[in-house]
Amino acid sequence: MSMYVVGHKIPDSDSICGAIALAYLKNQIGEAATPTRLGEVSPETAFILEKFGVETPELKLSYAGEEVYIVDHSELTQAPDDIAEATIVGIVDHHKLGDLTTSTPLECWIRPVGCSNTIIKMMYDFYNVEIPKDMAGIMLCAILSDTVIFKSPTCTTADIKCVEALAEIAGIEDYKALGMEMFKVKSAVEGTPVRDLVMRDFKDFNMNGELVGIGQLEVIDLAVFDEIKEELEADIAAMKVEGNRHTMILLLTDIMKEGSELLVVSDNEELTAKAYGKATENGRVWLDGVLSRKKQVVPQLQDVFA
Amino acid sequence: MSMYVVGHKIPDSDSICGAIALAYLKNQIGEAATPTRLGEVSPETAFILEKFGVETPELKLSYAGEEVYIVDHSELTQAPDDIAEATIVGIVDHHKLGDLTTSTPLECWIRPVGCSNTIIKMMYDFYNVEIPKDMAGIMLCAILSDTVIFKSPTCTTADIKCVEALAEIAGIEDYKALGMEMFKVKSAVEGTPVRDLVMRDFKDFNMNGELVGIGQLEVIDLAVFDEIKEELEADIAAMKVEGNRHTMILLLTDIMKEGSELLVVSDNEELTAKAYGKATENGRVWLDGVLSRKKQVVPQLQDVFA
Repeated sequence: MSMYVVGHKIPDSDSICGAIALAYLKNQIGEAATPTRLGEVSPETAFILEKFGVETPELKLSYAGEEVYIVDHSELTQAPDDIAEATIVGIVDHHKLGDLTTSTPLECWIRPVGCSNTIIKMMYDFYNVEIPKDMAGIMLCAILSDTVIFKSPTCTTADIKCVEALAEIAGIEDYKALGMEMFKVKSAVEGTPVRDLVMRDFKDFNMNGELVGIGQLEVIDLAVFDEIKEELEADIAAMKVEGNRHTMILLLTDIMKEGSELLVVSDNEELTAKAYGKATENGRVWLDGVLSRKKQVVPQLQDVFA
Repeated sequence: MSMYVVGHKIPDSDSICGAIALAYLKNQIGEAATPTRLGEVSPETAFILEKFGVETPELKLSYAGEEVYIVDHSELTQAPDDIAEATIVGIVDHHKLGDLTTSTPLECWIRPVGCSNTIIKMMYDFYNVEIPKDMAGIMLCAILSDTVIFKSPTCTTADIKCVEALAEIAGIEDYKALGMEMFKVKSAVEGTPVRDLVMRDFKDFNMNGELVGIGQLEVIDLAVFDEIKEELEADIAAMKVEGNRHTMILLLTDIMKEGSELLVVSDNEELTAKAYGKATENGRVWLDGVLSRKKQVVPQLQDVFA
């Protein structure tokens, strides 16, 4: 029986590249595995896969009766809809421990590092499997993306060492330049429908029974949003209603200025004041130094909802 | 801040020896750690600790405000009562993924092997930390206990290789003889109050909202229960009522005959027929080949409750 390796809904580069790299590793150690995805690939991910000549995984939404290896999350809301009817054989992740449970033993490679692909590199080392150049390239890009080229507070020395080792394998001399090239692709928002932008890197969280949707757009200059910010705000307000959500937040992250503007629509008007010590003005608030949804946005919200 | 390393309630040898061995490793890599326990040590565990001259961990029931590394489970019902007020920094486990969640990233070393101590040996190897003789001894005994000297279907080649490596470090020539010596200690039930026997290796499981308590006693000859079986049955019936449980099961496992007699008190009289294809007679049923609660008893029950 072949297992499927799949990341979260609205896949980011870590989910897609991680599924590909982990499926390759599993096949090398004699466990048949196929990488799949739960949604469209982002322009950033498309850039990475094209750059290293790697095929886009097949779109697959249903996993009932299948064996599944989960990448980059451990949350029911981010997993395939019918995950309860599948057998989870493993999880590789670098987030807080979510509400996925299993009825049989499994393997979990979960570490508090900046990117799932850093952990997948550890798995290659553990199984003593050589990493091909193309796999090294896509893994490296996923780590540069998740760690915002090492600027994110989620970045650890393990991530940096991993990128350096992968760069050597892939034969990439200036990986920071590659990272900037990638973030320039990510910053091209013109001409994209606002809903597509909000959904590009979007996650729903179950916070003590309330649904909280948080999107993030990382760009090299927030000016690209000047003309569409009101449209973005109207759209997250619509998504709040459509999804019966308690709160919708969109993080507009400036990776050069190293901070994020939050666009917020919430049933709790004091949410950002309570979570981050700073109230919104007209539904907007700038948080200096905030680059990481996972580390600087979600836990603080979770505490407010607790 | 020093972390506490603690196994599950009603600790078995894997929980106690694992907490000790993991705390030792953490201290070696510069992370202050103290092993603790959530209950009395069993005669088997006392035998192991005395054999290798290792101190019994301190009893500690409250962890609010502390950092905790969880050993040998990922279930709320098996964790400290105030675990929600603690920070879980890591989990090492070899069971199904339970309902513990966190609000911050953590490390999880979870593998489908026979014993948590097999995974802790992998952690020593990962961090390149030398295992002292006494640690090797208690880790080896925990693995022999959990795998029933390799007879359990939960036993993997990783467990066997691990025991062989640890035996060499500890200077133990005949580890199977040591295992038998240990199981003889475990088989001495005479003079022990029945409640203590039922509770010796007891776990509560939340099965789709219903509480199911399952105890297990592993002995080298079931004849030791002949005179107390009715008392044991009366006691699990009492525990069902006291704990408002849907089902109470006590596995009397014969490690030489390689099977278990189940004593069952349940709201569902067809439970064992549905789960194991064999009905109880007067609340008793012999299941040939069943040695493992985790692999041969719990998942099948979980399916019935699903």
